[in-house]
Amino acid sequence: MFQAKARAEVLKEVVNVVSTLVDEAKFIVNAEGLSLRAVDPAHIAMVELTLGKDAFEEFKADETEIGIDIDKLSQFLRLAKSDDMIDLKHDEDKRRLNIVVGDITRRMSLIDTTGMSDPKVPNLSLPATVTVKGDDLTQGIRASETVSDHIALVANPEGFEMSCEGDMDQVHFRKSKKDLIALDAPSSVRSLFPLEYFANMLKAVSSGNTVTLQLGNDYPVKMEFKIAGGKGEVRYLLAPRIESGD
Amino acid sequence: MFQAKARAEVLKEVVNVVSTLVDEAKFIVNAEGLSLRAVDPAHIAMVELTLGKDAFEEFKADETEIGIDIDKLSQFLRLAKSDDMIDLKHDEDKRRLNIVVGDITRRMSLIDTTGMSDPKVPNLSLPATVTVKGDDLTQGIRASETVSDHIALVANPEGFEMSCEGDMDQVHFRKSKKDLIALDAPSSVRSLFPLEYFANMLKAVSSGNTVTLQLGNDYPVKMEFKIAGGKGEVRYLLAPRIESGD
Amino acid sequence: MFQAKARAEVLKEVVNVVSTLVDEAKFIVNAEGLSLRAVDPAHIAMVELTLGKDAFEEFKADETEIGIDIDKLSQFLRLAKSDDMIDLKHDEDKRRLNIVVGDITRRMSLIDTTGMSDPKVPNLSLPATVTVKGDDLTQGIRASETVSDHIALVANPEGFEMSCEGDMDQVHFRKSKKDLIALDAPSSVRSLFPLEYFANMLKAVSSGNTVTLQLGNDYPVKMEFKIAGGKGEVRYLLAPRIESGD
Repeated sequence: MFQAKARAEVLKEVVNVVSTLVDEAKFIVNAEGLSLRAVDPAHIAMVELTLGKDAFEEFKADETEIGIDIDKLSQFLRLAKSDDMIDLKHDEDKRRLNIVVGDITRRMSLIDTTGMSDPKVPNLSLPATVTVKGDDLTQGIRASETVSDHIALVANPEGFEMSCEGDMDQVHFRKSKKDLIALDAPSSVRSLFPLEYFANMLKAVSSGNTVTLQLGNDYPVKMEFKIAGGKGEVRYLLAPRIESGD
Repeated sequence: MFQAKARAEVLKEVVNVVSTLVDEAKFIVNAEGLSLRAVDPAHIAMVELTLGKDAFEEFKADETEIGIDIDKLSQFLRLAKSDDMIDLKHDEDKRRLNIVVGDITRRMSLIDTTGMSDPKVPNLSLPATVTVKGDDLTQGIRASETVSDHIALVANPEGFEMSCEGDMDQVHFRKSKKDLIALDAPSSVRSLFPLEYFANMLKAVSSGNTVTLQLGNDYPVKMEFKIAGGKGEVRYLLAPRIESGD
Repeated sequence: MFQAKARAEVLKEVVNVVSTLVDEAKFIVNAEGLSLRAVDPAHIAMVELTLGKDAFEEFKADETEIGIDIDKLSQFLRLAKSDDMIDLKHDEDKRRLNIVVGDITRRMSLIDTTGMSDPKVPNLSLPATVTVKGDDLTQGIRASETVSDHIALVANPEGFEMSCEGDMDQVHFRKSKKDLIALDAPSSVRSLFPLEYFANMLKAVSSGNTVTLQLGNDYPVKMEFKIAGGKGEVRYLLAPRIESGD
């Protein structure tokens, strides 16, 4: 059983987060709220999302799995303004999710979740933590996009740096410690990442929000941020590229 | 003879209405105003438009026919703001329409109307009438667009419904009698229509305007609305699709 | 040596002017400011641009040539708001231009200028001069775009006219002397130009700005306007098409 009511804005945030990596997703609902764990088709990135029941206006659920076509849900939500109320109801017999906004009801066939994997979150020890405005990271990415396909994230006791080196040009984005929201980097660490993936993850961060990055040396990056005004949480994990020694 | 002056906004409404169905159109002008009747190339829909002479700032005409390339007129009108005055003058000798906005004059070759048909408006008895906000219908259409190519319009004594059933999903838009501007449906009627045509017709309705639909059982729908602040009238007629009994 | 600081807005104006004709450009800097002279690949148009050192917040330069990929510079400037400060520094050893906006640095490889020509400005005697709002010319061009590929510019003692004659339609834009900012045309002159080039040049004129055209009979047109609030100057020269006598 799953029946809930939420502001469109909250569901749009969820859709933005999930759609950066997958087209279809298995949501797990239970009495406490909703959660999801998914890996992109190329197995380069993972997303974990939790949304507490207090992010909803109304929420009632027994533990169940719901397989959703993210594109369809996204299309439907585009009909709603941020403040519109969305009713969600799982029709178990017909394997549908019934969604209502205003006078419009969509009865959406669910995706069979039996074949969908449950990705395991790897146990990582990442020595450096940087907290920074999402909008700053976005500026750095925009500056880098035409220079190379890869971006290095660097943290050291002095600050944080995004660095992108192409054949012709280089782009560097630097924040010294005093200009960061928080920095904990005992030593210098650096890892290289596929720029497009990192850019897509950042698109899911609402403007004005804060992002926490955890970094190591040639290790995955963990990107965390809040959604639904703090009532939900997103953790992305992105695999590094190993730098060639040229 | 035809010579007139109108606000750009009024002519833009006319162009929006006509361009949903045809690229070229034969306008009939006479001392009372302007009118048009046209059928789309696939003979699925018809439009009737009348614009009284009081919709114009100035208007002088003897009865004549003017064949206009709607795309060209539309391009030219894009140069004008809503409140700009447009001068129109038929140059019978050179078979042109001369259009002036501000410092710019376009002398537009007219289309030969001799081959253009005069569609007959069929005599239909449509038992149900629904009056509803155009914006509401547009929301229903937007919700349906990815679900199926057809949309059912249903009226009964309780209310009005747009219903779209695809292989996977269904969308329903429902307004009960009290939420409609007017409803006169002695019994339940339902007809199925090509969604794209219905959507295009709705695009010609200015935001905030009211639309009257007349419906029968597996019968065409007649859609009526006003233009030019009530000084013009549009009637669309759209042929039904016969529902397969699956 | 070249080191300068400028508002992003000023550099964006320079990029807009140059990118209408060329992808790569050789800027000459010296103690007085920056200048450029370039011809489009088809040798139909030429641009001359000068930007005095007082258009910059800071400016220090010995005479040198800097070859810039205009697209790259344009991309980078899109990261900046109009009022942002941009730092420019020529790194002669590495043949780079280092550009800084906020926390972001781009080290941009320069283009080798040794093969790039120094176009000569032809000595022209153009009898008519018209000063007009750029926005008016833009309206005239927009009205003409679908009618023909060529546009005639006409000046005579009574006024100024842009005239575009296609196989089917004609567009005329007319300003009588009293509606022009200035007019000096002892006799009537007329020349025909490729519409796309003239339209592109106009795109570099900021909205609200004034343009001076110098015209002759089947002669090039010279288009002049100010940039950087009057601290820079642009001169375009566009070759005429010879009218066929049909």
